[in-house]
Amino acid sequence: MIHIPHLAIYPVTGIPEIEPGDDVAGAIVESAARSGIGILDKDIVVVTHKVVSKAEGQIRAIPDEETYRNLVESEAVRIVRRRGDLVITQTKHGFICANAAVDRSNVAGGYAILLPVDPDRSANRLRTLIERATNTSIGVIITDTFGRPWRRGLTDVAIGISGLPAVVDLRGTTDSHGNVLEVTEVAAVDEIASAADLVMGKATGIPAAIVRGLDLVGDGRVSDLIRPPNEDLFR
Amino acid sequence: MIHIPHLAIYPVTGIPEIEPGDDVAGAIVESAARSGIGILDKDIVVVTHKVVSKAEGQIRAIPDEETYRNLVESEAVRIVRRRGDLVITQTKHGFICANAAVDRSNVAGGYAILLPVDPDRSANRLRTLIERATNTSIGVIITDTFGRPWRRGLTDVAIGISGLPAVVDLRGTTDSHGNVLEVTEVAAVDEIASAADLVMGKATGIPAAIVRGLDLVGDGRVSDLIRPPNEDLFR
Repeated sequence: MIHIPHLAIYPVTGIPEIEPGDDVAGAIVESAARSGIGILDKDIVVVTHKVVSKAEGQIRAIPDEETYRNLVESEAVRIVRRRGDLVITQTKHGFICANAAVDRSNVAGGYAILLPVDPDRSANRLRTLIERATNTSIGVIITDTFGRPWRRGLTDVAIGISGLPAVVDLRGTTDSHGNVLEVTEVAAVDEIASAADLVMGKATGIPAAIVRGLDLVGDGRVSDLIRPPNEDLFR
Repeated sequence: MIHIPHLAIYPVTGIPEIEPGDDVAGAIVESAARSGIGILDKDIVVVTHKVVSKAEGQIRAIPDEETYRNLVESEAVRIVRRRGDLVITQTKHGFICANAAVDRSNVAGGYAILLPVDPDRSANRLRTLIERATNTSIGVIITDTFGRPWRRGLTDVAIGISGLPAVVDLRGTTDSHGNVLEVTEVAAVDEIASAADLVMGKATGIPAAIVRGLDLVGDGRVSDLIRPPNEDLFR
């Protein structure tokens, strides 16, 4: 059988329910080993923020709708748009998303999950622990599921990264016709987050995936992905 | 060696330069066969619109900047925002994107590539031809590279689909905690477009990829992805 170079995306199954204080990195390493996937050099480990936030205690009781609405307002630093129950917000991290990313799915009824306080730091901690346990050099992406203003349907994006470039800058390189590419910064970590979601799913309870076959190393921060206000035409 | 179920994304290398009138489906089938990837049942063939548009003659001479600007204006049905040289437009297909998707990269200097006139029809034609040539049942996604309002960096999205659902509707299903998922329509075809871009690249001249390992069948149209004006908070 010939080997054709390709990108492989493995769901990490068998990760137990994560509770505050749990070791997410250890759970990923163990489940990846048990399923035979393992973790190799240059792998990119993609984790939904839900398990990271839960482990970090970023979970709040929401006994009623009013508590939920107040929590959304307190997590938002700016209301971008509001229509009926839908609130588009800017979070303290700078993300523009619905309901300040306060999430009631995949958590016990009556609770909500917030984003990690510092998602890049969370990604960095996961990366360090996984690298130590597996003697590898890897990248880590923490994801959330965001809507888009003009397209229906949700896609996963990166909300915390470590060991990776936030955008891959192709400006100044040439295409196959020798034209210099002018504005071609690719949000590779967002594309990887979306790719990983295809095996993680929303309803399946698989909180992590391993992306194997990319050669992507950098020291970007997720804030590099956030368009500054002076470039934002849709404030 | 144990087999672990995973998603595999193969770049289709060796596709020759496409000219108006060329057979894109045939070129993909041939290149996939030659490289050993082949095309199997339930594969999703992802193709950048550039080769599809070129084959369909959606290419225009742009001798100067003024011609380019006029072409952008004529391809747009609405100007959403304008700042300096940057024009955010709505295309006749309903897509909101920069410069009405008129593209000067990956084409000979002095020319620009437009979107296909009816990208779903183009996807459907490709699908029929590939299925006949390979005796399979597949999905096809035609992609373009769009910016996002609040996040830097570009990602690939679906602009034409065939044999696939536009959004995967998880509303009414339950998560691992038994909560009913309320608003969870996943734009799977956009996530697949982004995933495929990771192996296609902008500067490498690889115009197609094969995504293997998803079980996604439907008869969606790309217009299902477009948020109607009455739901658009960012007009």
